[in-house]
Amino acid sequence: MLLDGARIARTIREEVAPRVAAFDTAHGRPPTLHIVLVGDDPASQIYVRNKERAGAEAGLTVAVHRLASSVTVEDVLATVKSLNDDPACDGILVQAPLPKGIGKHGTELVFDAIDPRKDVDGFHPHNVGLLVQGRAVLKPCTPSGVVELLDRTGHAIAGKHAVVIGRSEIVGKPMALLLLQRDATVTICHSKTPDLVATCARADILVAAIGRPGFVTREFVKAGAVVIDVGINRVDSREQAVQLFGANHPRLAGFDQRGSMIVGDVHPAVAEVAGAMTPVPGGVGPLTIAMLLKNTIEAAVDR
Amino acid sequence: MLLDGARIARTIREEVAPRVAAFDTAHGRPPTLHIVLVGDDPASQIYVRNKERAGAEAGLTVAVHRLASSVTVEDVLATVKSLNDDPACDGILVQAPLPKGIGKHGTELVFDAIDPRKDVDGFHPHNVGLLVQGRAVLKPCTPSGVVELLDRTGHAIAGKHAVVIGRSEIVGKPMALLLLQRDATVTICHSKTPDLVATCARADILVAAIGRPGFVTREFVKAGAVVIDVGINRVDSREQAVQLFGANHPRLAGFDQRGSMIVGDVHPAVAEVAGAMTPVPGGVGPLTIAMLLKNTIEAAVDR
Repeated sequence: MLLDGARIARTIREEVAPRVAAFDTAHGRPPTLHIVLVGDDPASQIYVRNKERAGAEAGLTVAVHRLASSVTVEDVLATVKSLNDDPACDGILVQAPLPKGIGKHGTELVFDAIDPRKDVDGFHPHNVGLLVQGRAVLKPCTPSGVVELLDRTGHAIAGKHAVVIGRSEIVGKPMALLLLQRDATVTICHSKTPDLVATCARADILVAAIGRPGFVTREFVKAGAVVIDVGINRVDSREQAVQLFGANHPRLAGFDQRGSMIVGDVHPAVAEVAGAMTPVPGGVGPLTIAMLLKNTIEAAVDR
Repeated sequence: MLLDGARIARTIREEVAPRVAAFDTAHGRPPTLHIVLVGDDPASQIYVRNKERAGAEAGLTVAVHRLASSVTVEDVLATVKSLNDDPACDGILVQAPLPKGIGKHGTELVFDAIDPRKDVDGFHPHNVGLLVQGRAVLKPCTPSGVVELLDRTGHAIAGKHAVVIGRSEIVGKPMALLLLQRDATVTICHSKTPDLVATCARADILVAAIGRPGFVTREFVKAGAVVIDVGINRVDSREQAVQLFGANHPRLAGFDQRGSMIVGDVHPAVAEVAGAMTPVPGGVGPLTIAMLLKNTIEAAVDR
């Protein structure tokens, strides 16, 4: 059973739309999301364009602030601060990654500078702390999208054993915390986990957030488990595509057309053992954007 | 093998002492910890007295602000705010629990009002978020004490499977996050975990933080596991004491003298299977206070 994230994302966007309209009526302007895009990373350009389009469709105003890759940390901070101070700005998103020149410390300074009430990505330490304490308004979009997906497809979380592979700040850790809050017993695995296959094979709910194409193979998955694939990996090698899908799979036609394809962290053959799983594309990805729109209206209303 | 928390706590206090002296020399005053004690909960009186004494022994100034149990949230907030504004105050600790009249929301307002740079308990959402992100200066005392204990007794954390029973904000969650940060694979269990015994029996490091005397029995523990007992439970029934320790245990003499005894969450018989375990009392408890002193000098230096 494939979990249709795209369909659920549409539902969430339909729920957001009347709230956006009501805000517009009450305040004489739509809720406004400001995206700060630094440099010219091609993937970031696509992500930002998708966010712009989805926001516009939901009735939000989306403003993109493009800064050259050569800017200093101070330049980015100045942009963030002006948005913090702008009463007509409801949500601020700084598209990651920032250019190499900004550095790890500079990146922290930039994300820490965002007003937590406008932090629609939910990455600010204050919001992360509130998430731990079960009282966050703005939660990271991908993991909160996964919870929506499970809820809206009737997959119980409470009392289940959830295993999360990956411990990033953006997915793994908040995912584990959200599942814990919903009364799952949660195990967090990572590159230093010695018995990864055996540990994953005990999961009722398995979340893969590692960034390695097809890494989670059949033996990772207990029969009937719910498998959530957070990976979005570009495969450029036809050989690898054939290894993943077999030589006769319809998706190879797409590969041959474009010279690459997007695959998840979960091997396609897992579909034969999983009770339910998310496809890539069309699973978690669309939910991430839907939750961003939801966070924007939450931020606008909550301020 | 009993893990002598009291001895390690002494070592940490000996390491804190010269830093306190150096601060005193540099600033013309010792680092200062302010404790806000609201109401007359007898256990809180004892805890605060112990913190006062330990602070004084380490060369800190400890000031206790006693407020009647009838005070309003605004009164407590006013005290916290005056301490935030006091340049000679380095650390602020509001002793939990606050009186019933303050309520859950009032308690949140009070803890959220503490300047994160003075938050020596590490409970402020901002510090909790930094903990998740692996960059906290002020970490909750009990779980960071447990990490010190493991490190200083030569028990590796990286690559181990750690199971934490309990998901409180004060112990369970930060404990799991700290162990994860140190490259353990971490499972968090709680009252809704269906197969608690089997899950715990897979742990290399088992941390019990539930608050139920002797709850963790032999079958929870893999042979050779390191067992950390965070429980501090008062047992008033002689029958229960005999059930835990057997009729001829030397600790029953103490019970008969005082009419009660302090026991952990781990059953004494676990000593027969564990590779190492912390006693109660004398295990994690003294470390919690030592880490509070350490946090106070960190806060004083870091501001």
